[in-house]
Amino acid sequence: MLNENFTWNRTTDVLVVGTGFAGLSAAIEARTHNVDVLVIEKMNSYGGNSIISDGGIAAPNTHLQKKYMIKDDAALMYQDMLTAGLGLNYPNLLKTLVANAENAFRWTIDELGVPYMDRVDLFGGHSVPRCYTPEGKSGATILKRMISKTESLDIPIEYRVSFQEFLVDAAGKVIGATVLENYDYKSHSGTISHIKVRKGIILATGGYGADVPFRQLQDPRLTSEISTTNKPFTTAEGLKAALKINAAAVQLSQIQLGAWSSPDEKGYGHGPLFADYILFQYGVIIDPKDTKRFVNELGDRKTTGDAILSIGHPCLGIADHHAVSQSGWDISKAIKKGVVNTFESLDHLATHYDLNLHDLKNTINTYNDYVSQGSDPDYGKQIVEDARPIVSPPFYAMRLWPKVHFTMGGLGITEKAQVLDYNGKIIEGLYAAGEVAGGVHGASRLGSCAITECIVFGRIAGQMVSSR
Amino acid sequence: MLNENFTWNRTTDVLVVGTGFAGLSAAIEARTHNVDVLVIEKMNSYGGNSIISDGGIAAPNTHLQKKYMIKDDAALMYQDMLTAGLGLNYPNLLKTLVANAENAFRWTIDELGVPYMDRVDLFGGHSVPRCYTPEGKSGATILKRMISKTESLDIPIEYRVSFQEFLVDAAGKVIGATVLENYDYKSHSGTISHIKVRKGIILATGGYGADVPFRQLQDPRLTSEISTTNKPFTTAEGLKAALKINAAAVQLSQIQLGAWSSPDEKGYGHGPLFADYILFQYGVIIDPKDTKRFVNELGDRKTTGDAILSIGHPCLGIADHHAVSQSGWDISKAIKKGVVNTFESLDHLATHYDLNLHDLKNTINTYNDYVSQGSDPDYGKQIVEDARPIVSPPFYAMRLWPKVHFTMGGLGITEKAQVLDYNGKIIEGLYAAGEVAGGVHGASRLGSCAITECIVFGRIAGQMVSSR
Repeated sequence: MLNENFTWNRTTDVLVVGTGFAGLSAAIEARTHNVDVLVIEKMNSYGGNSIISDGGIAAPNTHLQKKYMIKDDAALMYQDMLTAGLGLNYPNLLKTLVANAENAFRWTIDELGVPYMDRVDLFGGHSVPRCYTPEGKSGATILKRMISKTESLDIPIEYRVSFQEFLVDAAGKVIGATVLENYDYKSHSGTISHIKVRKGIILATGGYGADVPFRQLQDPRLTSEISTTNKPFTTAEGLKAALKINAAAVQLSQIQLGAWSSPDEKGYGHGPLFADYILFQYGVIIDPKDTKRFVNELGDRKTTGDAILSIGHPCLGIADHHAVSQSGWDISKAIKKGVVNTFESLDHLATHYDLNLHDLKNTINTYNDYVSQGSDPDYGKQIVEDARPIVSPPFYAMRLWPKVHFTMGGLGITEKAQVLDYNGKIIEGLYAAGEVAGGVHGASRLGSCAITECIVFGRIAGQMVSSR
Repeated sequence: MLNENFTWNRTTDVLVVGTGFAGLSAAIEARTHNVDVLVIEKMNSYGGNSIISDGGIAAPNTHLQKKYMIKDDAALMYQDMLTAGLGLNYPNLLKTLVANAENAFRWTIDELGVPYMDRVDLFGGHSVPRCYTPEGKSGATILKRMISKTESLDIPIEYRVSFQEFLVDAAGKVIGATVLENYDYKSHSGTISHIKVRKGIILATGGYGADVPFRQLQDPRLTSEISTTNKPFTTAEGLKAALKINAAAVQLSQIQLGAWSSPDEKGYGHGPLFADYILFQYGVIIDPKDTKRFVNELGDRKTTGDAILSIGHPCLGIADHHAVSQSGWDISKAIKKGVVNTFESLDHLATHYDLNLHDLKNTINTYNDYVSQGSDPDYGKQIVEDARPIVSPPFYAMRLWPKVHFTMGGLGITEKAQVLDYNGKIIEGLYAAGEVAGGVHGASRLGSCAITECIVFGRIAGQMVSSR
């Protein structure tokens, strides 16, 4: 690459690639440390996949946990993530994440002014409620404040600029990038430009959940027949560019299926709000073929997703009026779209889905006994404190079928967000944060830990690059 | 690499890197197709890890299965491997393997003259006995015949020649290699030489089980504290060289732990013969802390290995005289080394390992009932036909603790053994076979399927490269 004939079109201290949570956190942090930052984004607008997330962020030891008297600490969150990750998580990255999670959450409030709802949620695989959701229940709530911050810090964000390749010096240090300006996403064309960087490049380009050929190389099941919750532009160009300069890919075959997805809508959709926030806590999942439960509804994502996939057809989740009202969530969109259906009685529900009513009632009665006694001997589900037997109409039902949701693998990084090569050596001038990096979550990411990862490692990358 | 100043030191049609089962199969096949072949080996002698294997090879529909009236077919072997691989196996590679397995086995007999024992063994995860073991119960029996064949075909094998890097043309096609001749394994030094290839290079360099930094990048648990059954030279140089020219690494984090390893000896050792061929079929594995079984002893390797690792300390395997004599194996070496201990009674065994005798007898009595009734309701172990209750002294016991045994991940290849890049495109002139390739076994390799893989894909690579 050094032997190409080119001239630098421009120069900056730090180039940040991507405008999701990780990229913007990195840009803000770097700029705060008094270096010039340029942010590029291949699409027309900011946010990447972050903008379609629920915005839930996990952290231990927070003011909201204290308010609701929830006992938690970094060690417990570490253990929860390690258990879900089947021990494959990088210990140094996981330690860094849990140690900085509360501070990252606090930063979004104090520095960015993100408004959070006055609640703490429990997601599958977490031992205690430790997930905080911004007003509007949308990642956009956080992103808007990040964008405001970049404006107040005079950080330029250039849209329709697509990262193409790293330019490295003879020692292998990253000294610049080739990009396409005026990028046309559909034709993958644009005007070549070379950006020189004085301090380094922070890759925050996200995962490869929508990159069918790339994900299929690692998990051949994930053909184009399997849908994704990700935006269609969630592809691996940035990651592949790093692999071309021999950055180490770690754990690429660890790809997460969203267990709360509906086959009755495209993309992330509206169903997951019902499934992940209501159904899994308060309801049951049954196999429509035999009307029986087959999994811990509050298991980690890998367990639940694999279990649903392994039965070979969509399953059915059922909750009741108490669950929905207790949750406080408005699921009217999911109902309007027909993703969640409502029924005045279990008889109607059974008729609609062609279930054996007697078996259905047996399954629900058994589960209701477990709720009353506070423990589930069949699947070890944690019965949450405000759970009630499923008895109060209307009843809500949603079909579930996994979609590719998150890619745990990515570039190997140090706890300072420095990218590693296959010899475990640091590639100078290159940093990665967020989903493009691998190893934090091991075999499976717990819900609401992605935003924590993006902000923690995005900020670290911003601090590190500016200190060079 | 094209811009380096160098001259070609010599030229061959085909360069084969490695002298294990895959490399030698490839070399023989290519030479049989009338091309010039040069084989290089970094060590002083041939065989790599293949030479320390038991030599067991799996295939369906063989003459030995017919002789013993074992019903089997390619579809059943496919399903067994897919189940063990948790569905991550590449369907095209797996289909190729099972479709060519019997032919590969037959080739070792008809073309190489390998003598096999008159028996068919059942290994964990296989639905039926389909594993054939050469006389001497050693991979060396097969390798010696392969070496004889290379001699009769005038294929030169050069020792102490270490592969360093691929040389590619402007189009990315592999046209040669940089090697170190007179290679000194300890200092990693030698004389640089450049070998031009007219047709291509077949990489058959094996896995990365003994490459601690490389394997730890993918699975951070596998520090230098975790031992390996592999030879210490089982490192990733060849694989890393391919990654440098942007070959695709697939499923690198899928690393298999040998469940039949002893913490009381180094390397592969003598314990696995007892554990894998006798104990798992006829005996029980217990946790010495509570003297209870905790896993299906005939489960696939991943299940058994992960289960042992997850209890956090070595477990204990127990079998009896009937098991050992029924198996027909000579385990005197394991006994002499103290890896397997013998006891005149369960009382003595319990005293030696500090077990509660009453609990031990309970566990074994319960298991014996399962053997008598032909099914194991606790862990679903398949009770083999010639299994008997564990009652006949002497009793044999061995401690078990996993070691890194096999690396399922490696280079992405087509069913023609052509290496893929991250865009799923074929890298011209580059082939890979055996453990250096990934995707055949998915999340877990079943016992005795590695040699099948090496011979099937080695031969295919040899055929393909010579047809170019």
